[in-house]
Amino acid sequence: MTKTARAFTNIALIKYWGKKDQKLKLPYTNSLSLTLDRFYTDTSSEIIDSSKDIIYLNDMLLNEEQSKRIIKYLDSTRKKYNFSEHFKINSVNHVPTSAGFASSASGFAALAASIDQTMALNLDKSQLSILARRGSGSASRSIYGGFVEWIAGDNNNNSFAVPIDENPDIDLEILSAVINKKAKKISSTSGMEKSVETSPFYPNWVKLVSSETNEIKQAIKQKDIQKIGEIAEHNAMSMHALTLSAKPSFTYFEPETVEIIHLIQELRQKGILAYVTIDAGPNVKILGTHKSIEQIKSYLNNLSDVTTVVANIGHGIQYF
Amino acid sequence: MTKTARAFTNIALIKYWGKKDQKLKLPYTNSLSLTLDRFYTDTSSEIIDSSKDIIYLNDMLLNEEQSKRIIKYLDSTRKKYNFSEHFKINSVNHVPTSAGFASSASGFAALAASIDQTMALNLDKSQLSILARRGSGSASRSIYGGFVEWIAGDNNNNSFAVPIDENPDIDLEILSAVINKKAKKISSTSGMEKSVETSPFYPNWVKLVSSETNEIKQAIKQKDIQKIGEIAEHNAMSMHALTLSAKPSFTYFEPETVEIIHLIQELRQKGILAYVTIDAGPNVKILGTHKSIEQIKSYLNNLSDVTTVVANIGHGIQYF
Repeated sequence: MTKTARAFTNIALIKYWGKKDQKLKLPYTNSLSLTLDRFYTDTSSEIIDSSKDIIYLNDMLLNEEQSKRIIKYLDSTRKKYNFSEHFKINSVNHVPTSAGFASSASGFAALAASIDQTMALNLDKSQLSILARRGSGSASRSIYGGFVEWIAGDNNNNSFAVPIDENPDIDLEILSAVINKKAKKISSTSGMEKSVETSPFYPNWVKLVSSETNEIKQAIKQKDIQKIGEIAEHNAMSMHALTLSAKPSFTYFEPETVEIIHLIQELRQKGILAYVTIDAGPNVKILGTHKSIEQIKSYLNNLSDVTTVVANIGHGIQYF
Repeated sequence: MTKTARAFTNIALIKYWGKKDQKLKLPYTNSLSLTLDRFYTDTSSEIIDSSKDIIYLNDMLLNEEQSKRIIKYLDSTRKKYNFSEHFKINSVNHVPTSAGFASSASGFAALAASIDQTMALNLDKSQLSILARRGSGSASRSIYGGFVEWIAGDNNNNSFAVPIDENPDIDLEILSAVINKKAKKISSTSGMEKSVETSPFYPNWVKLVSSETNEIKQAIKQKDIQKIGEIAEHNAMSMHALTLSAKPSFTYFEPETVEIIHLIQELRQKGILAYVTIDAGPNVKILGTHKSIEQIKSYLNNLSDVTTVVANIGHGIQYF
């Protein structure tokens, strides 16, 4: 009987921006995220009598080129845990592109958990987080629910996520404002590399993340949403300051991104609790309370080319 | 007979962003600008038998509130140079708001030069630059034509501009893309203060300006427009990175600003020589050659809500 592992996506409140080891995916800094409910990946893996893996994504068979990254990941996992089995993997993403979240975090967390199950590796959660990290850095955090910190570490075995508060009793919602327009893509991997190598502000980013991680953990403990929002917004904008100050300068912002940033600042001046965070793309995610997010949604729905979707706090890995 | 002093506006290629002394207008860093031909202020001053100054701007009499800044400036000038005469000042701005340049640089440079003339103070150009600086920091640079460096200094007497190349033989034009929309205003004074006090990246900005000032002077010497553009664009974007990383974060960018930034990057990839620089507002200034600016203008004229105006390299202070 095939078991299925489910992992939820997460949104970084303290951003992961820069690898000190590309291959091992070791970050320069800790990062801190919130796992979201609504968006997840379900992955099952079945041992097959073959010398090749077969990969399905959303029930479609992937060709060699499309499955390359996953097969490379499975190869390194076989090597590390010293087994030779191959798999039929089926991964179903419930992270629609239209929701503005990357599926690599939930995808690699679910894949790692599925392999652990199928091969009965009996990994503890730290080991599982390490295994997920090797697929995609942010996947390390999707092992846990609620607020999660990824400890940067300095080698393969001490760079993993830890739970900060898996079931926070806090009235916090995330609205994703998705810009329905094809923007030119700079991958996060490439954007990080350029920032690390060319932004004169990168050394100060490393220090900033260290202090803001401590501050936001304090704010989470105090359930202080305003403080959480202030820190998250400043951290995200400082990450985008790194792209502006890279050589050559670049930005993930599109015109609508700036329009929404200004709108949220205006709403905040009207007393509506709202803070923005932005990842390596043009979409804007807004932190608020259940009540404020309802208000913000009605303002954003007036903008053309913008779709909104709301998420709540989500769980860690689940198995079916 | 009343004489008139004419000063031209200038655009900073290495930005002035942050004062270490608010009152004396001493900057944290050197800055470097290009004086522009088309935009200037003509100012005349006449000694009157009165204990109050009378100020006309564009032939309109200013009231007490409107003339406050200029009268305060005249008071401090009287004190410094130990005279008691009062003036009828007439200042005519040929820096239309629609051109997207501030008139304070040309305005205070022309006023300083006019007072120098009328009172026969016989100031040398360094002293004139210091006097202009006391009115508005960037006015210190409008004393000279062409490429001008403002040496930060550390007291009132050693913070003034020096000419780098007053008559550069270089095919360089500036296109100002003005966004015809009321943006919320954050004054440059306030924006600088917030950046200095709250951006974690400010200390590295100071170091960056020091190295980029040296690099751009080298590029000016070599008449290397591409290099001048690259440095100017990176410096401007790094200044805007300071506003993003301030607490709370803010930005002078409007949606159209980002649209033009992306457009210029695309045109550059098509082989058109074009670099952007942006001051404390939403308008974008584009550096190019006579030929490339013609091409860029035709692309920008397709955008609604954007007006373009082209300037060439301008002169230092003139008298009529």
